[in-house]
Amino acid sequence: MENKLVQYFSTLATLTAEEARAIDEGANVKTVQKGTFLWRAGQTIASTYFVWEGCLREYLVVDGEEKTTNFYTENQWAIPFNSFTPQEPILHNLVCVEDTTLSMGNEEEAQHIFKQFPRFETISRAVMETVFQEQRKAMTSYLTDSPEQRYLKLLQSRPDLFQRVPQYQLASYIGVKPESLSRIRKRIMKNDVI
Amino acid sequence: MENKLVQYFSTLATLTAEEARAIDEGANVKTVQKGTFLWRAGQTIASTYFVWEGCLREYLVVDGEEKTTNFYTENQWAIPFNSFTPQEPILHNLVCVEDTTLSMGNEEEAQHIFKQFPRFETISRAVMETVFQEQRKAMTSYLTDSPEQRYLKLLQSRPDLFQRVPQYQLASYIGVKPESLSRIRKRIMKNDVI
Repeated sequence: MENKLVQYFSTLATLTAEEARAIDEGANVKTVQKGTFLWRAGQTIASTYFVWEGCLREYLVVDGEEKTTNFYTENQWAIPFNSFTPQEPILHNLVCVEDTTLSMGNEEEAQHIFKQFPRFETISRAVMETVFQEQRKAMTSYLTDSPEQRYLKLLQSRPDLFQRVPQYQLASYIGVKPESLSRIRKRIMKNDVI
Repeated sequence: MENKLVQYFSTLATLTAEEARAIDEGANVKTVQKGTFLWRAGQTIASTYFVWEGCLREYLVVDGEEKTTNFYTENQWAIPFNSFTPQEPILHNLVCVEDTTLSMGNEEEAQHIFKQFPRFETISRAVMETVFQEQRKAMTSYLTDSPEQRYLKLLQSRPDLFQRVPQYQLASYIGVKPESLSRIRKRIMKNDVI
């Protein structure tokens, strides 16, 4: 497999051969099995992951029930949000929905790259902001859209998830019970909205 | 008033005299009147604000109703989340709840400071991550806590808001109707939870 991390950064900036080599050497690629936990809520130390191939699910446990807060697939970043405050416990769980190939890293390794190539810090800020912007949109959608609207938006923006992820996980991501998801789907198909 | 931005950054790193002077000179301080809009949903260009003194309210409009998503007070940052993708429209409104003194900035000005003092890019990443971490916690609380729990958490973490902000805005931030907020308050006082 080509180095997906080099490919990803090449879409953000024209890399010199030296920069591409540094990313390639620091990519720290692993393949982890379906069902493996990468973060567990309450842990304090957690890595950042970039997905080469596969699918990760992030969730909270509320009154014994799982609430899915995100899915990370190809070319997406899962960032633990306590990398600058590692004494703060992680709030979420992160588990592999499929066998997943990914790069893993942490703040210390990032600093090492930034020392050699300072402009990567700007690129990294831009990546982080993009990730947070996506999460902000998701939060906004959660506050403003009906479950039907969220279902339709997800179907449009990430149709692959409907093939890759169990229905109950999709339901908890959209914010409804699995029965409601079936009803939403039937209603939408009947009304020919799609 | 002393330069609050210099004070703020002094808590994150020991500043050289030269660094403190650069922040002081670039602080771009303004006092804006209660009721002034700093962002309007749909705009594409928006600044980042650091509050010296005062209170800003961030909200969405959903079916004609305002949903408050944050309050920013002394030493907090309001970041528009499209500073790296300024073609994306802003989702939120940001309005002054009080006459507010603040620093305003944008990505271009930040880059100018980073060129002179590269370590400020790391500090800035840490600030951004802290802001996002707070938002993530708020989102998590929204998904996991009852309105009573959110009320109590807010009372503990930001008691000043209860004096500064109208009840209906607090209610929409907690995610309930104003009537429900009154009921929650009565129930909590009756049960002597505080």
